[in-house]
This record gives sequence, C-alpha cells and structure tokens, in this order.
Amino acid sequence: MARPPIAIIMGSQSDWATMRHAAETLDALGVPYDTRIVSAHRTPDRLVAFAKGARAEGFQVIIAGAGGAAHLPGMTAAMTPLPVFGVPVESKALSGQDSLLSIVQMPAGIPVGTLAIGRAGAVNAALLAAAVLALHDPALSQRLDEWRKRQSESVAERPSNEG
Amino acid sequence: MARPPIAIIMGSQSDWATMRHAAETLDALGVPYDTRIVSAHRTPDRLVAFAKGARAEGFQVIIAGAGGAAHLPGMTAAMTPLPVFGVPVESKALSGQDSLLSIVQMPAGIPVGTLAIGRAGAVNAALLAAAVLALHDPALSQRLDEWRKRQSESVAERPSNEG
Amino acid sequence: MARPPIAIIMGSQSDWATMRHAAETLDALGVPYDTRIVSAHRTPDRLVAFAKGARAEGFQVIIAGAGGAAHLPGMTAAMTPLPVFGVPVESKALSGQDSLLSIVQMPAGIPVGTLAIGRAGAVNAALLAAAVLALHDPALSQRLDEWRKRQSESVAERPSNEG
Amino acid sequence: MARPPIAIIMGSQSDWATMRHAAETLDALGVPYDTRIVSAHRTPDRLVAFAKGARAEGFQVIIAGAGGAAHLPGMTAAMTPLPVFGVPVESKALSGQDSLLSIVQMPAGIPVGTLAIGRAGAVNAALLAAAVLALHDPALSQRLDEWRKRQSESVAERPSNEG
Amino acid sequence: MARPPIAIIMGSQSDWATMRHAAETLDALGVPYDTRIVSAHRTPDRLVAFAKGARAEGFQVIIAGAGGAAHLPGMTAAMTPLPVFGVPVESKALSGQDSLLSIVQMPAGIPVGTLAIGRAGAVNAALLAAAVLALHDPALSQRLDEWRKRQSESVAERPSNEG
Amino acid sequence: MARPPIAIIMGSQSDWATMRHAAETLDALGVPYDTRIVSAHRTPDRLVAFAKGARAEGFQVIIAGAGGAAHLPGMTAAMTPLPVFGVPVESKALSGQDSLLSIVQMPAGIPVGTLAIGRAGAVNAALLAAAVLALHDPALSQRLDEWRKRQSESVAERPSNEG
Amino acid sequence: MARPPIAIIMGSQSDWATMRHAAETLDALGVPYDTRIVSAHRTPDRLVAFAKGARAEGFQVIIAGAGGAAHLPGMTAAMTPLPVFGVPVESKALSGQDSLLSIVQMPAGIPVGTLAIGRAGAVNAALLAAAVLALHDPALSQRLDEWRKRQSESVAERPSNEG
Amino acid sequence: MARPPIAIIMGSQSDWATMRHAAETLDALGVPYDTRIVSAHRTPDRLVAFAKGARAEGFQVIIAGAGGAAHLPGMTAAMTPLPVFGVPVESKALSGQDSLLSIVQMPAGIPVGTLAIGRAGAVNAALLAAAVLALHDPALSQRLDEWRKRQSESVAERPSNEG
Repeated sequence: MARPPIAIIMGSQSDWATMRHAAETLDALGVPYDTRIVSAHRTPDRLVAFAKGARAEGFQVIIAGAGGAAHLPGMTAAMTPLPVFGVPVESKALSGQDSLLSIVQMPAGIPVGTLAIGRAGAVNAALLAAAVLALHDPALSQRLDEWRKRQSESVAERPSNEG
Repeated sequence: MARPPIAIIMGSQSDWATMRHAAETLDALGVPYDTRIVSAHRTPDRLVAFAKGARAEGFQVIIAGAGGAAHLPGMTAAMTPLPVFGVPVESKALSGQDSLLSIVQMPAGIPVGTLAIGRAGAVNAALLAAAVLALHDPALSQRLDEWRKRQSESVAERPSNEG
Repeated sequence: MARPPIAIIMGSQSDWATMRHAAETLDALGVPYDTRIVSAHRTPDRLVAFAKGARAEGFQVIIAGAGGAAHLPGMTAAMTPLPVFGVPVESKALSGQDSLLSIVQMPAGIPVGTLAIGRAGAVNAALLAAAVLALHDPALSQRLDEWRKRQSESVAERPSNEG
Repeated sequence: MARPPIAIIMGSQSDWATMRHAAETLDALGVPYDTRIVSAHRTPDRLVAFAKGARAEGFQVIIAGAGGAAHLPGMTAAMTPLPVFGVPVESKALSGQDSLLSIVQMPAGIPVGTLAIGRAGAVNAALLAAAVLALHDPALSQRLDEWRKRQSESVAERPSNEG
Repeated sequence: MARPPIAIIMGSQSDWATMRHAAETLDALGVPYDTRIVSAHRTPDRLVAFAKGARAEGFQVIIAGAGGAAHLPGMTAAMTPLPVFGVPVESKALSGQDSLLSIVQMPAGIPVGTLAIGRAGAVNAALLAAAVLALHDPALSQRLDEWRKRQSESVAERPSNEG
Repeated sequence: MARPPIAIIMGSQSDWATMRHAAETLDALGVPYDTRIVSAHRTPDRLVAFAKGARAEGFQVIIAGAGGAAHLPGMTAAMTPLPVFGVPVESKALSGQDSLLSIVQMPAGIPVGTLAIGRAGAVNAALLAAAVLALHDPALSQRLDEWRKRQSESVAERPSNEG
Repeated sequence: MARPPIAIIMGSQSDWATMRHAAETLDALGVPYDTRIVSAHRTPDRLVAFAKGARAEGFQVIIAGAGGAAHLPGMTAAMTPLPVFGVPVESKALSGQDSLLSIVQMPAGIPVGTLAIGRAGAVNAALLAAAVLALHDPALSQRLDEWRKRQSESVAERPSNEG
Repeated sequence: MARPPIAIIMGSQSDWATMRHAAETLDALGVPYDTRIVSAHRTPDRLVAFAKGARAEGFQVIIAGAGGAAHLPGMTAAMTPLPVFGVPVESKALSGQDSLLSIVQMPAGIPVGTLAIGRAGAVNAALLAAAVLALHDPALSQRLDEWRKRQSESVAERPSNEG
C-alpha cells in the first residue's frame, strides 16, 4: 500500500492544537498524511533520521510547525530535497513574531515556504501542499478546484448581525 | 514547444534587482522560466488576466515578488490554483517588514508560501519552485541534489581573514 | 431613488464586529450607505465587479475594512477612481500591525486613506467619508458640525471615579 | 479669483523634501494648492489660526506632513471639519514608524486619512485629495482618469536589465 | 489660598484608571494637585486655554496622560514654559507602543519628559514632579526621602511562595 | 558546610512566579542554590553589596531575573567577575520585549548570557548554570546527561488529541 | 563660587556626539553645567559615588545619556532624589529602540523623565532641565521665554526649495 | 598537547567579520580557541559531527554566531551538554532582530546564553566563556580581573571633543 505523500511534523504536543487544522484540511481534500512529533531541540536524532529519510519513505511534501526559536522547518529543509512548508505557531510572549522570523528568514540555499502565524497558516500549508500534489494528480486538482469554488460561494453577500 | 513551467512576476521594474536572483538560480539549475511585470495596483487587469490564465498557459509554479503593501503574491494566489511563492522585496522605510507581513499573513483559504526578505528570498523561491518540479522530473531532481551537494562542499572549514 | 453615496465593504463576516461602528456612525449622521462582504482573496471576481462598477453604481466614497494581509482596500483603490478609506481590523496574533502595514504602505500611484486599527478606525472612516460628502452637502455639513460640537461638549471637565 | 482648494502644510522646512512630491503631483493634475509651514509644536498659534480658518479661507482638503511625534495632522483635524490627509515623514532613528503611529492612531471622533511613509505617501495624499475634488469637478475627474490610464500603460511588460 | 502646584490632565475619562495612580502618589506625598480632562482632539479650545494659562494659574509642573496618537503632552508643552511630564496610557491594539512614541519622540525645541507605559508611568510622573518641587521645598524633600527609604525597606530579602 | 554555588536573584517578589522555575529545575538536578530579592532600583545598596561580595560568598554562577527596564542582570555583571545569566521577565504592556532588550543589549566589556522571555528562560538559566558547574562536577554532569536523555525520551512519537 | 546646577553625564566618550547638543543648548540659555563620563557598567563605583553625592555636590538636575542596554539614567535615579532626565542614544543595530525601552520603562518608584532618541532628545533634556530651574530663577525664565519666542519666529511661512 | 577549551563556530565566512572580535578578545586574555565554519543549513552533517563530538574533542565552552534565521547556536546546544553562548550577527534587512529572536527564544530544555547583536556580542561571548573557565583557572581569573580593571581605568573622566 502506498505511503501518504505528506508528512505533518511539529516540535511538540502543544503544537498540535495549531497543526490539527492542517490535518483537517487534508482530510477534507482526501489527501493522506502522516503526523509526527519531531523536536529539533529535544530529539535531534529523530530530526536527522526523519529529514534524511523522508524522500525514501515516500513523502513528497513536508509541513512543519514550530514556535519560538522555531528551528524545525529550516533544519528539516537542510536535510531533505523535498519542499518544506513552515507554520509559525503562536508563541506566548511574542505572539509568534519570533516563530515567524525564525522560520521565514532562511539564508539563500535552503528554502522554507512559510505560511501565516497560527491556525490560518496551518490550513494554508495543507492547501499549498495539496496544490503541489495536484500538479500531477488530476482528481485532486479537481477536488481542490471544487473546494475553492465552495469557499467562494460560502462568502455571504452582506454582513449579518447574527454572524 | 513546451512553455516554461515557472513564471517570475514582480510589481515593478525596481523589483528586478531582487528578483533577478531567482532567475539566475533557475538558470543555474537549467529550469526555464518566464519573467513579467504585473503590478497589482497599477495594472489590475493584467493581474487578473495573468493569474486566471496561468494554468492554461502551462505554468506550474508562480514566483511573485513585491514590496511595501505587497498585494501581488496574495492576489495572484486568489485567482489561480497553482502554488504561489512570495518574495518580500526590501522596502525603503520599513526594510521589508511591511512587505513580509503583507505577503505572509494571508487568511485561511488562500496560501502563499513566503520566503525571506530580499535576495535570499528570491534565490530560495527559485530553489523551492525547482524542488516542486523535481518531484516529477528525475533529471532536475538529480541536478538539484548536485547543486545542494556543491553548496555543502563550498563551505570552508575555517574562516579566513581574506574572506 | 438615489443610491447611497457610501459603500462599506469588508473582507469577511467577522470584520462586521469592527465595521458596524462605521455604519452606526453614518446612521447617527443621517448618511445612507450600503454594506457588502467582498473578499479580495476568496471572491476576487466580486472584488473586480464591485470596484470597477462602484462609480457607475453611484457610490462616491468607499470604506473598506480588512485584517491580516489586508488587500481589500488597496485592490479596490486599484480599480476605482473614487476615494477609498481603509480600516485595519485587529488581527489575532499581531493585533492589527499586519493589517495596518498592508493597508497604509501603498505604493505611489494608488492611495488608500488609512484610519486607526479597530473600532476607532471604523468610526473615523465614517466621519472622514461624511466630511468628504459635506463639501457639497450643506445640510450634512451642518449635522457634522453639530456632531462635533456635541462631542466636544460631552467631555467632562474632571475625571470621575464612577467613570 | 478663487482660492486654491488644497492646502499642503508641513511641520518644518525639512519636510519639504518629502512634501514637494505632493505639490508636483497636484501640478501634474492641474490642481491649484497653497503650501505653508505650520509647526504644531513651535508655532501653535499659527496652527490654531490656520486650522480654524481653513474652511473660511476656501480650502476643501488639507494635506499635512510631519515626522517623529507627528501631531500636525491630528491637531489640524481637531480644529477643522475639512478632510485631512496625513503623510508620515520618514524620521531618522525610527524610519517613520513613530510618524506613522502618531498620525494614524487617532481616537474615535477625529479622523486623519493616513498615507504611506515618505515620498509615496506624499504623492498619494495628492491623488486622494484630487479624487475628492474630482467628485464634483468632471474635468478634473477626466484628468485623473487619464493620469491613471497613463500610469497603467507605463508599466513595462517585462523587466529590463537596464531598468 | 495657594493654588496646587501640579496639574494632572488626561485626554479622556478612560485615562483616569491609569492617571489616578499619579494622584494617589501625590496624596501619599502630601502634594496638592488639580485634575482635569483636556482632550487635545475633542476639546482643542480647552487645551489652548489650559496650556496658555497654566503658569498664570499658578501651576509649576504638568502631568499629562494620553493614549494612541497621544498629542496632549506635546501640545501642552508647545504652549507652556512649565515642565511637562507625559504618561503613555496603554492602548488596546498596540499596548501603548503608539502612545509611547507619540509622546516621547518630540522634535528638538519642545520637550516632554516621558515616563513608562501605564500605571508605573503614572506613579513615576508624580514622583518626578514631586522631586522638581522638592528642590525648593525642604519639607517635601524630606517626605520624599522618607518615602524612598520606606520603599527600599519594604523590599523583602527573599521571595515568598505566598507573595 | 559549603555555600550553594548558584544564586538566583530577582528584582521583586512578583518575579518569583517566573524565577521559581529556575529553582525547581535546580532542585530536579540536585544543585543547591540561594534565592534573594535584589532590586537594582529600589535597593541599590543591596545590589552593590551582593554583586561585589558574590564571589567571596562562594557563588560560582548568578541567575538574575527582571522585567521592564531590567537593569539587575547587567548591573550585577558590572560588579562581579562571575558568569551572570539573565532572564527577561514578561512585562505587562510590552510582553517582555523591553526586558529582553534591556538585558541582552549590553555593551562590549560586560557580558550577560541572556535566556528566553519568561518561564522557558528561567528553566534554561538553571540548565545553563548547571552545565557550567558540570564542567568540574562529574556526578552533576551525569545527572544532567540523564535529565537530557529523559527529556528526549519523553517526547511522544505522534500528537495526541488528548495531549 | 556656586557649583553648576546641572550635570550632564554619559556612558562613554562616543555618546558625546549626541550629548554635546545638550551642552550647547545650555550654553545658549546661559545655564552652567558639568560634563562627566560615568559608565554604569565599566565604572560602577564612579556611578555610585556620583549618584549618591550629586545632591551634596550642589547639582539640582541630572541629564544622563546612554545607548543599548542603557542603565545609566535609571541607576542614577535609583541613588539620588534629584530629577533625572534620560536621553536614549541611537544604537547601531536597533537604532535606539533598545536605548529608549531601557530608559523609559522604569518600574514604579524610580522615575526617569525620558526624551527622544538622539540629538533632539539631548536638546530637549537641556530645555527641560532649564524649565525646572526657571521655576525659581526669573532671569532664566525670561531667557527661556525669549528662546522659545525666537524659535517660533524662526519658522518660515512657506517652504523653500533652497531650504 | 591539550586541546583549546573554546570553540568559536559560525554559520558562514561572512560572520567572521563579527566573530573575529570574539577571537581577538580571547587572544587578549590568553585563552586558546579553535575557529570553524559550521553551517546548520548548508552543512548539517558537519553540525551533527561537531556538536556531538565537542565534549570528546576537549572543548568546554562553545561560542556560536549566526544571522537571520540563526539556528546554529540552538541546534548545537541540542546536541552537546556543553554551555553554548550565541551571538546574533547583524542581518541586512532586519538589523539582527531576526538573529536575536532565533537564538534567544529557545524552548525550555535547551539553553543558549545569548549576547548582544553584533560586535559587542562577540566580545562579550568571549568574556563570558573566559569567566566560565576562570572558575577553575586562578591564573585566568587574575588576568580577567586585570582586564576588567584596565577597562574601568580606561574610561576618561570627561568627554573630549577630540574623542
């Protein structure tokens, strides 16, 4: 049986409250995925094993969420040729400004495609990963088009006081 | 003859000083691309025409650079299902902090994979786009692996006062 | 029957909690208005149709509120010659700093008159729009003068512990 | 002979390097204007006299530029019912972040429509003021439309290495 | 009977929650004061009257608190030769960063001695005003010394879990 | 009997809510410590006495926590040759950004090794102090290794919805 | 012979480029002063001696300038009952934002009246100190009034392209 | 022959312009050190090898400098029990604010003692490392005391216009 094409990794259990929105979005699009906790700081061996083995495991895209001095997305990107999309998890004191800068300001040579801080970023990492897979998966491409069409249609014409 | 798979768009001629680093990186990897100026604010019709037609034109990935209230990457992503990678061009007063936030803080539903401010971001947008294409292009995948290998090998062991 | 001279548009239903203060201020000044949800990202066609048709629809001033990577005010201004006033809606992680910069830092050529983050900005967008209309509406000009006079008179002389 | 409809005021001679771009833009649009130095801090009497008398002088729109703790736009708006558009002049240490916040974060009741920091903001304040006047000046409206059309047409299709 | 030497002014009733800490500190030091609401934006005439008349009224030091685009301290300083101490009131969206910059970044020529954001700033404005008065009031000087001595003595030697 | 090698000092009782995490971490590692309140501002004599006497008292490492204009770590470092580690306590208005900059931006000549804002910083100051002591304490070195090993092992493989 | 009433202290020789503007302003007002380098970090003993002895030396007001983790103003205020005015010197990497927060965010109990970053702040610290002295020095009060009057009169009516 | 006790590592040759100040400071103190380029992103294998082997190589303290999304100090700390001191190298667009947050905001469990941005931080990392070694090296302790004494004595009493 085929391996899921997308890995959702995160630095700690507490990041799951944010990253589950990536998982739920992939569920809605019918895209299989695997979820793992990989702490760049507390489990560096796991990080190396995961990142170096990701392509061989059959993954095609990696979604990585982390907060604070968020090194997981960038270090994963350093050890795999696969596209890595980073989600800055909202941190306590600095509201994710540290997470954002730690993920997005990568030096030339090792890219991380970074999404918005928090839930919106997790949803969008999933959509972006799906858009990448859809380039060679016409059925997914159609489901994604339909998802976007429904999203457009769901926007009400006028604001409601009950909204 | 096949269309280039990557479009590099930018909001103005002045962004080319940054975005040419994306072009040069794709040149080094042997990936064809097209470059266009598409101003979200000054040429909105061109934006709509480009974004809506990008998939039909044969593009697979779009790299979009803009500065200040940088709306080009997000508005392009709103009108195409293709993956969009955004490059925050360094702005004069705020050094690209406005560009970065205008690009990365997209709402749930419309993703832009955002790279670092300035030249590093332009180089990395090209590398990320190439990584996406490499998922289904073994020759490119190999060239990318070699590029990364050479990059690793080019790092000197010790700092040099001549460096 | 005449069309209302002011359009209040916003990126999503959730922005209404902020933008209703614009509506209530116009109510207090006796200025008719229309309210619409126009998402730059989720309903780009609606945005184009609205912005391009706004002058023909009879609108004279547009108030646009949005949060995060807030592209609605600037993209509307790109497609209409009417004055556009932007309200940065307070965002979750960054408290509207992203909204503010995404709206105010427009490039030369396409202006958006930007108000404060949140409720105060919504109230003031309405007052500014009314001040524009009052230039050619003596009755409104008088109502606005009275509104300002009452506002001045309502400021107590001394702080109260019950306040 | 009619008074010019627009006043361009600024806090000091040094702000003219920025605010002249507003003047030049109005020149290009054929809109008369008056320019004055009005320092909220060093000439408060001049500020009061100007702001209270602006409507009677025949002005319709006020463009006010200032830097640092930039109080000129807001204090002018406090003493005139005319629309006031504020231009944050780039400050030395904080690059205009102080100017921007001092101008845009006005409390509910007294609006200042704020433009971008620096030259772009000055150009756009002129365009916004012209758009307000154009609501009741068909000839100006046509000139503004043409100005915008030329602006769109001036955007090259592709970036040039000579650019 | 002598006029109180210190005026505590603030931009609105809502600032009293912060500024009452200045009043309470002066109470503790036995320094008389007057409290007034003076809105730079909503009551500019009151501002002019107060600031221009403050020295003649017998005030020696002015404490001014305001939030957001906080113009009250600086505009007061523009119209009185008396020392003015400014208290940035914590604002909703930006936590007083806008208040702080609007107060402290005064141009050369018109000083405002600025204290910390919020309650600490209000307490300290009172202490600083008292220190100024104490230069020519030996009894107050002694009370201030005692206040500071008690403050030092009140610091426990070790942290307590009950603290 | 030997003096504890580590002093945990803080600017006020309220900092204990943060700094107790340093104490608890040292408890877990079996490293003795002393805790004291030393306010740079309210008890400067106590600061001088403590800092100048710290080496003679037998301390080897000092952990200092403070918030806002946090001068305690830097002033202690100015008066002792011992290594000083600073913990920025989260402040109310600015969330510890002021604390962080006040501690970390020391001029060349007087170092303070600065940890993260808040609880994580307090835990890490203890771990860093223990790492310094472990250089010459093989038993502690082993306990620290075991602590780190348990930490790694405690990271679950996959996120849990119960987590 | 009487001691000068004002001390201008600074953390290092390099701060003199900023603080000389305070000295020159006092020269223009005919107010004697003393200048000293007092490094909180490199000469803590000198700091203690200066601050504790300042009142006995005859000083009435202290102006303290420092950059980065700027502890000099606050530590001086901790050890003298005299009014202390702080000038944030512009730092290299952070443009004085660190200096500003390190000086202004003092805890309740120990005030520092803080001026703007850089040259403007140095000028204004001198003006504020003079305003304090002028409360009991009618001749200085008159000179200060004249200085302010000349400042107002020096503001040109209109901007000049030669300016 | 004994290995040098301190390793100075940096992410790229360009960081040497900053980190050489750490080397020069150790030279002045007579402390041997080794310098290496270890790029977390471009040479992750070298990072793993270095960090895991550092204790066995005989190092006692590691000084790590990096800029932008600066992952080197934190990732090194994740793989060695030795004390790690981080130096945020000033980055182009964000002046080292990204470097600082990426280094200092480490999660609980893996500490990095962080110094100031740029040259001052490099000097201070060396001083802090020396202070750690001096705990068990009386000769070095004495040299460090003398270095600090000379530093204090080198501070002039008064500012000089020639300075």
